[in-house]
Amino acid sequence: MKVKFGVDEWRIIEQEFDPAANRFSESIFSLGNEHMGLRGFFEEDYSGDSLPGTYLAGVFYPDKTRVGWWKIGYPEFFAKMINSANWIGVKIASGGASLDLAQCRIRDFRRELDMKEGRLTRSFVWSGADGRETACCFTRFLSMAENNLACLAVEITPLNYAGTLSLTPYLDGDVVNEDANYAEQFWEEVAQTVASDWALLVMRTKKSEFTVATAMAVQLFLDRDEVFPSREAIAAPQKVGWSCEVQVEQGQKLTLHKLIAVCTSRDYPVAGLNEICLAKLRGAAAQGYAALWAEHRREMTRKWEESDLTIRGDHLAQQGIRYNIFQLNQTYTGKDPRLNIGPKGFTGEKYGGGTYWDTEAFCFPFYLYTDPEVARNLLYYRYLHLQRARENAAQLGLKGALYPMVTVDGRECHNEWEITFEEIHRNGAIAYAIYQYTEYTGDSSYLIQYGLEVLVELSRFWASRVTYQPRRDQYLILGVTGPNEYENNVNNNWYTNTMAAWTLEYTLNSLETVRRGAGAALERLVARLGLDPSELRQWAAIIAKMYYPRCEAAGIFEQNDQYLDKEMQLVSELDPAELPLNKHWSWDRILRSNFIKQADVLQGLYFFPERFDRECLRRNFDFYEPRTVHESSLSASVHSILASRIGYRDKAYELYLRTARLDLDNYNADTDDGVHLTSMAGSWLAIVQGFAGMLVREGRLQLNPYVPAQWQGYSFQIAFRGRKLKLEIAADRVCIRQLSGEALSLDIWGRECLTQPGQRTVIPARPESAPRVQDAG
Amino acid sequence: MKVKFGVDEWRIIEQEFDPAANRFSESIFSLGNEHMGLRGFFEEDYSGDSLPGTYLAGVFYPDKTRVGWWKIGYPEFFAKMINSANWIGVKIASGGASLDLAQCRIRDFRRELDMKEGRLTRSFVWSGADGRETACCFTRFLSMAENNLACLAVEITPLNYAGTLSLTPYLDGDVVNEDANYAEQFWEEVAQTVASDWALLVMRTKKSEFTVATAMAVQLFLDRDEVFPSREAIAAPQKVGWSCEVQVEQGQKLTLHKLIAVCTSRDYPVAGLNEICLAKLRGAAAQGYAALWAEHRREMTRKWEESDLTIRGDHLAQQGIRYNIFQLNQTYTGKDPRLNIGPKGFTGEKYGGGTYWDTEAFCFPFYLYTDPEVARNLLYYRYLHLQRARENAAQLGLKGALYPMVTVDGRECHNEWEITFEEIHRNGAIAYAIYQYTEYTGDSSYLIQYGLEVLVELSRFWASRVTYQPRRDQYLILGVTGPNEYENNVNNNWYTNTMAAWTLEYTLNSLETVRRGAGAALERLVARLGLDPSELRQWAAIIAKMYYPRCEAAGIFEQNDQYLDKEMQLVSELDPAELPLNKHWSWDRILRSNFIKQADVLQGLYFFPERFDRECLRRNFDFYEPRTVHESSLSASVHSILASRIGYRDKAYELYLRTARLDLDNYNADTDDGVHLTSMAGSWLAIVQGFAGMLVREGRLQLNPYVPAQWQGYSFQIAFRGRKLKLEIAADRVCIRQLSGEALSLDIWGRECLTQPGQRTVIPARPESAPRVQDAG
Repeated sequence: MKVKFGVDEWRIIEQEFDPAANRFSESIFSLGNEHMGLRGFFEEDYSGDSLPGTYLAGVFYPDKTRVGWWKIGYPEFFAKMINSANWIGVKIASGGASLDLAQCRIRDFRRELDMKEGRLTRSFVWSGADGRETACCFTRFLSMAENNLACLAVEITPLNYAGTLSLTPYLDGDVVNEDANYAEQFWEEVAQTVASDWALLVMRTKKSEFTVATAMAVQLFLDRDEVFPSREAIAAPQKVGWSCEVQVEQGQKLTLHKLIAVCTSRDYPVAGLNEICLAKLRGAAAQGYAALWAEHRREMTRKWEESDLTIRGDHLAQQGIRYNIFQLNQTYTGKDPRLNIGPKGFTGEKYGGGTYWDTEAFCFPFYLYTDPEVARNLLYYRYLHLQRARENAAQLGLKGALYPMVTVDGRECHNEWEITFEEIHRNGAIAYAIYQYTEYTGDSSYLIQYGLEVLVELSRFWASRVTYQPRRDQYLILGVTGPNEYENNVNNNWYTNTMAAWTLEYTLNSLETVRRGAGAALERLVARLGLDPSELRQWAAIIAKMYYPRCEAAGIFEQNDQYLDKEMQLVSELDPAELPLNKHWSWDRILRSNFIKQADVLQGLYFFPERFDRECLRRNFDFYEPRTVHESSLSASVHSILASRIGYRDKAYELYLRTARLDLDNYNADTDDGVHLTSMAGSWLAIVQGFAGMLVREGRLQLNPYVPAQWQGYSFQIAFRGRKLKLEIAADRVCIRQLSGEALSLDIWGRECLTQPGQRTVIPARPESAPRVQDAG
Repeated sequence: MKVKFGVDEWRIIEQEFDPAANRFSESIFSLGNEHMGLRGFFEEDYSGDSLPGTYLAGVFYPDKTRVGWWKIGYPEFFAKMINSANWIGVKIASGGASLDLAQCRIRDFRRELDMKEGRLTRSFVWSGADGRETACCFTRFLSMAENNLACLAVEITPLNYAGTLSLTPYLDGDVVNEDANYAEQFWEEVAQTVASDWALLVMRTKKSEFTVATAMAVQLFLDRDEVFPSREAIAAPQKVGWSCEVQVEQGQKLTLHKLIAVCTSRDYPVAGLNEICLAKLRGAAAQGYAALWAEHRREMTRKWEESDLTIRGDHLAQQGIRYNIFQLNQTYTGKDPRLNIGPKGFTGEKYGGGTYWDTEAFCFPFYLYTDPEVARNLLYYRYLHLQRARENAAQLGLKGALYPMVTVDGRECHNEWEITFEEIHRNGAIAYAIYQYTEYTGDSSYLIQYGLEVLVELSRFWASRVTYQPRRDQYLILGVTGPNEYENNVNNNWYTNTMAAWTLEYTLNSLETVRRGAGAALERLVARLGLDPSELRQWAAIIAKMYYPRCEAAGIFEQNDQYLDKEMQLVSELDPAELPLNKHWSWDRILRSNFIKQADVLQGLYFFPERFDRECLRRNFDFYEPRTVHESSLSASVHSILASRIGYRDKAYELYLRTARLDLDNYNADTDDGVHLTSMAGSWLAIVQGFAGMLVREGRLQLNPYVPAQWQGYSFQIAFRGRKLKLEIAADRVCIRQLSGEALSLDIWGRECLTQPGQRTVIPARPESAPRVQDAG
């Protein structure tokens, strides 16, 4: 894999502008602050290939669904995260020439994302056809402190001439979504104003009726002195701005500060929206660029204190994991429980910005371990959608609740029957997240207040979705698609059956726990949901008689019925030129092959380490992993964690590498569409759950850490039951610094140890305690 | 089922205009002549709900494919039969008022399709707001004798006033397809001319580059005298015509004859197209309306002599079967082997006018029995597409040839993976049609010249599509969709496995037969296709070890693996309000249910009566039919034939009724979209193969006829190996009139009998020879 960007622990550095790779770089250099975000496209005009995307969290458009043949139960629309008014635009001209990197000659190009500070800068020298040399530098940040605000600075210096520089800062609502089905415009203009020192553009979506006010103010400086050139207003349809010209001496620096406020009707009533937006802009202008920057940096520092993970002895790995954490924190901070984590965050339009099971299965533990309140908001998001999940199940003729495969507001947005109707295991991950939260935090208040209601409805769904087969006296689950989407419409997917029975069991256990602890709350719930003892008996019967396909001869679980009837082949037997299969093989061939897209049986073994011993895990891993092409960005991390658990350290590291720098090294050649946000959490988990072997069992924190041979050590911080712990892992010892909270007893390498607040505890490794097993492959 | 139309043996009569049912009536009153066709929409302006469709055989548009998520192997386009220039249009006004049946008051409405003569008439009295009463009558026909021509007559009579009538005959190219994805215009104008006595409009499709010239000439008469009012030319974009006014006395009849010629670049070089079209128009004008009408009637009479089927004692049934034969003959006459039979003929746009396996499985025998040359052209159509079928298989990574599920030019047009990639049994029906043709006609020249090459490529496909399963030492076919499209992506569909193995066997046998009879031809073919003895050995191995799912306990074949794991329910247990399931149940629920859309195992038993005894047929019928909802229009006819074979006569008749008047009685409430052309052949087969029990075994014609209790008798004509036979079936006897050809020995009720040319042979029934079995259900 070619490393494109300069290696630095805190920065992503691009030292050459490659127009052919522009979309890739735009994805990588995306910024966000939970409320809004944008790709790394340019401030000035650019006539080359680009995906100029500016997105607002939760602002979607119900675009028509493209579908071959509509089937009952399909949604009428596919919600799309919507490209919204471009607020970074600044046209730049020197003399008669306009700056456009697709047309102009430049040198000394450098683009740099400072992950620590959350800032993107770009600089180069523009060599004009007339011999003029102009230094240009752009800086932007989206405030993490006040997420309606963003700032950018443009600095222009004539190096070998004196002359007139022309700057045209603007807001432009005339944008389209690249993934629009019909190249339809999603927005219409509501209002615009260009005043002397501010401009406002108000746009409304055509169908979903989101109104968005975007306001800007600009300041100009010649070196350090503010200047006030005359401004010519621009007030075109869907566009506002000013044009101004400044006479600049050789070597003088012309600086433009552009301050932006973006407010949406998601957050404020439409009636006062414009005033609120202008008030925020005025407040920002009063503070000024430097103060806004300082405020933003403080918040960035705080986020990093919570979530940083350091790696000693491997700069590439360090850069990779920090990039992943950075993008996760830019995308979702948990301030707004109406939001969730789109698979591309703010970095692209693919997957429509919707919520997938990725959230619960991959992202959730990252937030849970670093900031449990954020995780709780992710759970609450699903509670808010419970009624729509009930409606979704009813639409299919089933009881209880079926959460959508893809959603933005609780309704199903996806339109392939084999996914929408059949990839129902997603319900299992939602139950599992409730379990994980309760188990990790020891706080059952979420379970009692909200979680139990969700669990009951999920259980009702499973109870109505199973088929009792009298000949076998067993319960089957027919017609599903497992996590391995390279098989569709199979019977008795082991993972799905496992998650279904587990959900019923966890629900029954939770009802019992709550009955003992919060009887009154339970009684109200039982009455409200009409929960009946016969229902609970039915659940118990299903648990007892659930069918789990297995192959006794091989000592493995069978992915689903008849998986083993397929022609058996290993990935190692494939011609590498045919990989990835989904770019080379017909769908027919993929479906009929035994190749697996992502962990399926192994996903279940990952979730329930206490239920299956290491030998069982090893047999299944040895069978399935060599048949897995990892063509989901979510696959490698789970496999890496399992390899760590088995003791396949080389394999664990190899798989970790596939997740850790997936986007920076464009491993799947698809980062042009945006980064793989939800898989980024997986790389963090591969370290924390994999290398460090972190688990919580019956309320007790356990670690079984090792250090990959390629590293010297690593450290990370977790929040656990009111404590903050910083864990430093080295090959020969673990150091725990307890930053807050009460003393804690935990297990390291199976040995009990106690940490104290404010203290640093060192646990030396004993060689025999780090299991070593012969590596597979 | 409500009978909407007047019952008449030769006519379909509508006596009331129901705007809410207008689309339904438009479908029913469609006309065609293989080359072109149109729905029964109105000549005059109509502002109500309507689907004004004018279609040209083989003229298609490659519209963009709508699809959720594109998968490798999907086609880039969906071909659509394209709505083309409206040539029936005549605006009508009396005084200041325009005729529009959505706005005007009318009485004595009558619309009548004369099936014998192939003519549509419509008449009514228009009662104007000003008290004016005007009698209007419209007649149209599409010449079966010269299929570039069509004629229409408009007769207007002021009943209680004298005044000016205004007529505006026109051609209008500004039409859209209702099933366009993007409401895109498919046509652009190439040229137009309005001369004094003719007008020409030339349109070209935007992508597929078909050019179509449409020309018209009109004559006007007052009572019987031709009149020549001054004409005002209309030459608007995509529209040509004239407007003229005629002063008419009370009781005088103003008649307009509009003669039309339509020529396409499918048939003539573009360069001379306009001249050819005008020459045809001039020829028609020289002949005049009456002569064209006489010529058309002669051809209609000839067609009916070949294909009529009479039923004694049941006018409803008689009307129904004649309507079906009428539509079949209007749609496809076999003159052009580049054409085929769209599921809606010229009566609607649904299914895009493409060719489906319906042709071979359902339509083919109708043409084979009535005119084998037509059937041969249907086979040849597939031969012409063999290269594209090879490319289609290669695109999926398979060998040999896979014919498309839907096609218009040999390329696949459908875009659902579970159909396109998996409903591969279609290949079996294409092989079976070759077998049927050869067996029925005794003519192996098609097999030798073309058929064998197709068979070899079909066999290669199957040989590459099977999976050898070493644990079982059997060949499996994984991941298919059978004829029952209410299960998708199943393993080992019994019908598919049966057709695959049978195709291999028939190919091997044919190779052997041809080796004996036409060795040199075979050697050339073997050399050209690189056919290798090891390939033939592999085919033999597959035949020997093909796996056929069955349930020994029930003595039935299992539709596919795990079908019997489903919850077993009968259609009789369903709430009738939930039928049809495809309008009430989610796709998920349908897929997981045991309900069957159309014959699947039974389709196989239908094809191979010599392989499975009646007891086996009965057990499978008794099991599957009660689980079949017949939601394909193709299902009931096959079941009816099988019921006849078993001796379930009531059931056979009940199922026959579902096919016989499917459209006239709008049984499935979907005739608005067009009639069910390909199922119409099924009702003919239900009589000929079912009630009459006609079969050809080892070259010998066999009949085992009975008369349904509701009828007195029936008769039909067949062409068999150079003979024409008219068969008249009564309860107590069969009469055979041999119209042409040599003497023939055949079996009736298992008894050998001999017919002689020009003679009428009467075979009396013997009661014991007509099998009676207790009826099911």
